[in-house]
Amino acid sequence: MADIAIGIHGGCGTLAKDLLSEKDWAETRQHLADSLRAGWTIVKKGGRSVEAVEAAIVVMENSPHFNAGHGAALTENADHELDASIMDGATLGAGAICAVRTIRNPIKAARAVMEKSDLLLITGQPADDFARRVGLDIVPNSYFTTQRRVDALASLKAKAERQEIAMASEAERHGTVGAVALDAKGNLAAGTSTGGFNNKPVGRVGDSPIIGAGTYAANGSCAVSCTGMGEIFIRRVAAYDVSARMRYAGKGLREAADAVIAAVGSHKIGAGLVSVDAGGKVYAPFNTLGMARGWIEADGKVYVATHQDVHEMGAA
Amino acid sequence: MADIAIGIHGGCGTLAKDLLSEKDWAETRQHLADSLRAGWTIVKKGGRSVEAVEAAIVVMENSPHFNAGHGAALTENADHELDASIMDGATLGAGAICAVRTIRNPIKAARAVMEKSDLLLITGQPADDFARRVGLDIVPNSYFTTQRRVDALASLKAKAERQEIAMASEAERHGTVGAVALDAKGNLAAGTSTGGFNNKPVGRVGDSPIIGAGTYAANGSCAVSCTGMGEIFIRRVAAYDVSARMRYAGKGLREAADAVIAAVGSHKIGAGLVSVDAGGKVYAPFNTLGMARGWIEADGKVYVATHQDVHEMGAA
Repeated sequence: MADIAIGIHGGCGTLAKDLLSEKDWAETRQHLADSLRAGWTIVKKGGRSVEAVEAAIVVMENSPHFNAGHGAALTENADHELDASIMDGATLGAGAICAVRTIRNPIKAARAVMEKSDLLLITGQPADDFARRVGLDIVPNSYFTTQRRVDALASLKAKAERQEIAMASEAERHGTVGAVALDAKGNLAAGTSTGGFNNKPVGRVGDSPIIGAGTYAANGSCAVSCTGMGEIFIRRVAAYDVSARMRYAGKGLREAADAVIAAVGSHKIGAGLVSVDAGGKVYAPFNTLGMARGWIEADGKVYVATHQDVHEMGAA
Repeated sequence: MADIAIGIHGGCGTLAKDLLSEKDWAETRQHLADSLRAGWTIVKKGGRSVEAVEAAIVVMENSPHFNAGHGAALTENADHELDASIMDGATLGAGAICAVRTIRNPIKAARAVMEKSDLLLITGQPADDFARRVGLDIVPNSYFTTQRRVDALASLKAKAERQEIAMASEAERHGTVGAVALDAKGNLAAGTSTGGFNNKPVGRVGDSPIIGAGTYAANGSCAVSCTGMGEIFIRRVAAYDVSARMRYAGKGLREAADAVIAAVGSHKIGAGLVSVDAGGKVYAPFNTLGMARGWIEADGKVYVATHQDVHEMGAA
């Protein structure tokens, strides 16, 4: 029996603390803890890490506080296109969908692609059709919309009209959710789900559905889920690069992950990731003001954070 | 001034020699040579490797002998969805499009995404719209169709009805085109373009538009374009893995590329790639019966091949 562990992130585009009420922050922390417990419960019972990753991400997709599923960012057309991927480190199996519009929980569709198709990545309407065919919950696109995102889009469009695009905060542009887990059989898994960024062009695909860029897991090495400006994470093959530095250069998880955040950050973007190694140590570095995140390691204690300060939320 | 070099592949799904006429093989070799010369002319004049890669791929996209552009594989719906990507090793800039239907030369659209947008990957109709907006040639979907692909799809569908799916040859399933180049300033570049595989499900995206999987280039390391069952190349992050093994494990290009073909091949699939290192050595390994390929290195001689035997086609 290996140590078990779970780690999550809710995006590195965290707002400054004073831009939301303490009630909002408390609810965000609670949903992070709920997400962790949903995953932990599975691996604690001997379940598979890939199931834990899915369960943890579903909680964040269902929460309005994160940019995935309900609460996802709005495109330039004021609707939603969602991306997700999942990878099973035991088999190097993976599944992903991008630019989907009606799947309540995109991470479930990613897993279904991995387990119920011969494909790895399906884009657009055929991915929505696939999800319906395998029996996943289908919702109207408006299900994903929250007032906060409508306001954010209006604010961004107003800024764009005033030629202030550069002033759009990281928080208005980015955010993603992800999870990594290690189960008792030593199997690692990772998953990522996103709505992209507010005001994103339709058809734009970032790193979240790209295995190697936004998501990667390989037994004996690590599991990684990334958050930040996806275009840079793709160019840097960021998630796999953590594993490659460990496997080929003999680095430990922290050193490898820090190097990847530095490489991605060298492009002057906000960046973060959550990772776990084969020993069950979770590491969640970021170079931004904050990153919603949390973890449970062998001691079974739930830790969550949105900025620098870490909150212990009791036993798992 | 560095040595200049160009290498190309036309897919590892090469048919057995006796399945096509010698006239067909000769024309295929001629188009490979034309592709090489199109790219070589650019780097010989001091042009950029990324321009050479685009020019070489355009020739193969325009040839009916390769599974990209005109002559691309047909989807299950008997139409075409095309994918392409390009990467500039000097800047780690990259662009890609997937599931496009009307862009005469998808590799040009990939380059336009890199150079004329803030995005990296655009999917579906918005990618077609983008290409039109930046002035690329737009064609009806039927432009891509050749009788050979129509016959191949009919054959596959007939086999499927007889439950002989497993008997579909690699050649009926796969094929892709790609190019790598090194210019006189030492800049590496790589690109890949594909129609996917015959009878592919609509919405399926393989490795060709995925930076890190099907395409990768980084100055000082290597440029790589892959061919084979894309789902496996994505899981193995194949193109970047060649570079990672060189950079982190200190391997040379041949050893790194052979290791990646072995890793991908361990999934019991046909696999190939073309690569070039920072010294201008081209290496194009494959584990199949044949792979259309060619190269010009410092000596300026044009070499092309479809199976084991290599043909010298004169000076560049």
